[in-house]
Amino acid sequence: MFIKFWKEGSRVNREERYMSLAIQMARETVGQTAPNPSVAAVVVKENQVVGIGVHVKAGEPHAEVHALRMAGEKAEGAEIYVTLEPCSHYGRTPPCAKSIVEAGISQVYIASHDPNPKVAGQGVELMKSHGVKVTEGILRQEADALNESFFHFIQSKRPYVRLKSAMSLDGKIATSTGESQWITGEGARLDGHAYRHQSDAILVGINTILADDPTLTTRIEGGGRQPVRMVLDSHLRTPTSSKLIQNQEAPTWIFVNNEVEQERIRDFDPYTHVRIVQQADPQINVEQVLAYAGEQKITSLLVEGGGTVADAFVRTGNVDETVTYIAPKLIGGKDALTPVSGKGIDHLQDAELFEVSSTEMVGGDVKIVSKKKRGY
Amino acid sequence: MFIKFWKEGSRVNREERYMSLAIQMARETVGQTAPNPSVAAVVVKENQVVGIGVHVKAGEPHAEVHALRMAGEKAEGAEIYVTLEPCSHYGRTPPCAKSIVEAGISQVYIASHDPNPKVAGQGVELMKSHGVKVTEGILRQEADALNESFFHFIQSKRPYVRLKSAMSLDGKIATSTGESQWITGEGARLDGHAYRHQSDAILVGINTILADDPTLTTRIEGGGRQPVRMVLDSHLRTPTSSKLIQNQEAPTWIFVNNEVEQERIRDFDPYTHVRIVQQADPQINVEQVLAYAGEQKITSLLVEGGGTVADAFVRTGNVDETVTYIAPKLIGGKDALTPVSGKGIDHLQDAELFEVSSTEMVGGDVKIVSKKKRGY
Repeated sequence: MFIKFWKEGSRVNREERYMSLAIQMARETVGQTAPNPSVAAVVVKENQVVGIGVHVKAGEPHAEVHALRMAGEKAEGAEIYVTLEPCSHYGRTPPCAKSIVEAGISQVYIASHDPNPKVAGQGVELMKSHGVKVTEGILRQEADALNESFFHFIQSKRPYVRLKSAMSLDGKIATSTGESQWITGEGARLDGHAYRHQSDAILVGINTILADDPTLTTRIEGGGRQPVRMVLDSHLRTPTSSKLIQNQEAPTWIFVNNEVEQERIRDFDPYTHVRIVQQADPQINVEQVLAYAGEQKITSLLVEGGGTVADAFVRTGNVDETVTYIAPKLIGGKDALTPVSGKGIDHLQDAELFEVSSTEMVGGDVKIVSKKKRGY
Repeated sequence: MFIKFWKEGSRVNREERYMSLAIQMARETVGQTAPNPSVAAVVVKENQVVGIGVHVKAGEPHAEVHALRMAGEKAEGAEIYVTLEPCSHYGRTPPCAKSIVEAGISQVYIASHDPNPKVAGQGVELMKSHGVKVTEGILRQEADALNESFFHFIQSKRPYVRLKSAMSLDGKIATSTGESQWITGEGARLDGHAYRHQSDAILVGINTILADDPTLTTRIEGGGRQPVRMVLDSHLRTPTSSKLIQNQEAPTWIFVNNEVEQERIRDFDPYTHVRIVQQADPQINVEQVLAYAGEQKITSLLVEGGGTVADAFVRTGNVDETVTYIAPKLIGGKDALTPVSGKGIDHLQDAELFEVSSTEMVGGDVKIVSKKKRGY
């Protein structure tokens, strides 16, 4: 017991300990705050926690407001630990940087910078100009990882795209006769549902709808968020009898080409959760789909297949992260389906560079997460 | 410093510490002792190491002999730690169990049992009958892992088969235009050469010879063992001009069917390192290839491709271990090659069960090792 305490004390200093607590709180809210980031705050006075808060939902108070409210008069002369630079602008709530100054906070610790280049640093400046001490970058990497989708969205106006696959050790998602249930174990499938819970939208191609008739809802214990269900379906072949149309648990957006007739589109009028998004071209264009999703404030998109859709995202360089579950099985078969099919890239030098960010066991399967190498 | 010592002391007892040393020594000889197992021994008297030995090469003295020789008179009343049950039979060397008794050893610690059911326990019995104390099973799992190939070979009379693949995150070993050099990084390729060094033979199909004209030699720093190069080549299409025939660094066995004419086979007479093994059927049969390899004392076989050959091993249930390197790249392509092609299995329930035994990063790539679930 003594040993354990001694080790912890030596490894993590005081600032990191309180920031780590804030990051743990924010982590539990990932997804639910969209299109806002996940943020948590801890107010500390004389080494005692006197206020904590998280941002629960877009439109509701920011984390700092909850934490300062809990601290009340104790905020005077206290420190606040915030996972993201406090905002400086009037949105649906007053600027947090101003609230911090008014509460009499003397020292602010910040993990992540404001990702919006236009306003980055303004919150810090506002507080400093009122004599508040500000220290930035405490556990920044950890905090940045929580809001990867949000940062990407703010900078590109498009959702952060995760490509999820489940395959055998030899890269198959089904046998050559088409059997696909199940290659990976229950643990991996549950883990996949957690990704749905954290995503604003989920996307599949029409072939997946016709072959599997999936519900595409989040099934996790205790209930979960239901992401928007997006389908790439050039010729509007989705049957109105499919589960996606009959099950109204989540909004459903079907992307069709410019040749689909209005009469056919009107078949879907009775289903108020369904939106047919008609594009201007005969070919569905991934860039346009992502631009539309961004306009609709979809900050994170989970691409679940099949192979042709995945290929369309891969070939246009629109995969930001991969989540791959690998079952220790060998299936074989020249014609067995693989997670990314379609045309593919011709030359290895054209393959986009990813970086493995984690590997872990989920039940008996291996899970590999990799992220696109990028500049920010 | 104090803390570290305290932790080690509590985790590993004395018996495990000396056995662990023996296992470390044996690990460095994996492969070089074939068709014998890798074995090491440590003689300890009054907590001082007085003798150590490893088995270096088949035909040379066993590990116990080297260790007892080093200990000399100090072996009297000493303990000996051996990674494998000492032998009880007269082979090319006298039985080690007898040597241990004669040296006056009072206590023997053993990790692995003798894998040969016919003689298992006889070494232990011989020593016990002479009043030597014997403790079995110290770090057995670790020691067993060193000699997986050997144990498999002794019990089945066939080589232990490892299937090695290098693929992208979406299961491709080449682009759809056929580019395959290189998907994985240099680290993974070097790691693959270490497997050649530890294998008695390496196997590819004729398509790999015709497409890549590989040398199939072990290229590691400091030089390595050269495994026998085996080629499945029904119609004897291997050109005499290919590197496998022109490079004489390693024996080369070409398996052909019963239709290949003697005249064509005689073309290979000038190449003394080449052996044409003609089978009795028009189809090359994996079972027969493995039986032949076993007769020739090949204890471990590394299957390196291509997909059709891999499929022949997979479908007949003849893969004992998989070594898969996965590069964080997405390639796509319905027609891009995958590590196991051919016919494949039809039903998921027919897929053989493997178990992931390790995952690790090798450079920027993920390496997954899995092993067939088995009974012994």
